[in-house]
Amino acid sequence: MDVEIWSDIACPWCYIGKRRFEAALERFEHRDDVQVTWRSFELDPAAPAEREGERAARLAEKYGITVERAREMERQMTETAASEGLEFRFDRARSGATFDAHRVVHLAAEHGVQDAMKERLLRAYFTEGELMSDRDRLIHLAIEVGLDEDAVREMLAGDRLADEVRADERTAARFGISAVPTFVVDRALGVSGAHPPEALLELLREGWARRRPAPVVLAGGEACGVDGDC
Amino acid sequence: MDVEIWSDIACPWCYIGKRRFEAALERFEHRDDVQVTWRSFELDPAAPAEREGERAARLAEKYGITVERAREMERQMTETAASEGLEFRFDRARSGATFDAHRVVHLAAEHGVQDAMKERLLRAYFTEGELMSDRDRLIHLAIEVGLDEDAVREMLAGDRLADEVRADERTAARFGISAVPTFVVDRALGVSGAHPPEALLELLREGWARRRPAPVVLAGGEACGVDGDC
Repeated sequence: MDVEIWSDIACPWCYIGKRRFEAALERFEHRDDVQVTWRSFELDPAAPAEREGERAARLAEKYGITVERAREMERQMTETAASEGLEFRFDRARSGATFDAHRVVHLAAEHGVQDAMKERLLRAYFTEGELMSDRDRLIHLAIEVGLDEDAVREMLAGDRLADEVRADERTAARFGISAVPTFVVDRALGVSGAHPPEALLELLREGWARRRPAPVVLAGGEACGVDGDC
Repeated sequence: MDVEIWSDIACPWCYIGKRRFEAALERFEHRDDVQVTWRSFELDPAAPAEREGERAARLAEKYGITVERAREMERQMTETAASEGLEFRFDRARSGATFDAHRVVHLAAEHGVQDAMKERLLRAYFTEGELMSDRDRLIHLAIEVGLDEDAVREMLAGDRLADEVRADERTAARFGISAVPTFVVDRALGVSGAHPPEALLELLREGWARRRPAPVVLAGGEACGVDGDC
């Protein structure tokens, strides 16, 4: 069964949702038959390399609230994250474009370490104050999960995997996904939001019950068989 | 709509079937919405790097027929291929393992030139007498379709993409595919065999009529929206 998770890096509910999904998957009886794919979704595709000023001040201006109220919201989010074992450090988070970080996640997928890369980038962003548009830092983080330095550097220097990031985002648009994280099972059903593990487990079980049967393949044409018989 | 085509390189019906599928796709009204993926299928995963002796002699021994009868079968296949515009040269074809060639096709997919690579390998095998287990020749052929020499060399020297080849073959086994080419539409229906373009066009139309709807995605959980609102 395929589970695709659309999410961004600079997205607190995506990180919290990852933990909740992992808890759901851990309890899912068919977890060994689940293939998870991280799909790209930039919350702000027009973001600059790095945003200026304090995050709470930007929030306050955006929503017409006081900076103190915005800081209070950050404290609440930090507590929610802590209850999932995550350390959110909004005081040092550096906001900016995540496009290249998504390309790195795609590269990691080619080498079987997509989940580890996604996890490493989330921690770098939320806990360590790393800037996701800083290519040297991305290379450093990619090396940590086992990617080859030259391969990452070369990819980032060119356009490779840009199409894959955009293809994920086009698919999201086609599916009507406008908020992340969004969990989609076998491209049949899904939920948006960092729901509690119980709800995500329910999604997995419902998806399993409805999982796609094997295709009907009609035989009989001119073909070569496994014994080499053409 | 996704069309996956399981096929081998050293497989005459796969090459003929590729031309017939192209003719069908050309006439398909929704061809711009079709995404074709070549899937790996080794007819003989235990093949040596290169088989000894004349192909017709091997066929004769295998099927208990005369060598002359085997050569006659080759002439008929060559004529069928010629009617599709293909030049089959069984007199110089070098039979052997195709595993590395399949890895090269996967690498090409990462760079958006999978179809061109598959085509180039088929021609190399059937027309030019290239040996598919010869890594230096594979690198040469990959460069011709635009792949980076170092990237191909490095991949072939290691294990990369071996898992992807085997995953394709496991999926084929799960779907009950035991002969190639096999064309599968949206993992819902498919046909084995190099059917005439009319039949393959029918498959495309039937697949289109049944194509998978977009998933039902329930909103409402804790999420970050496209406006950055968490």
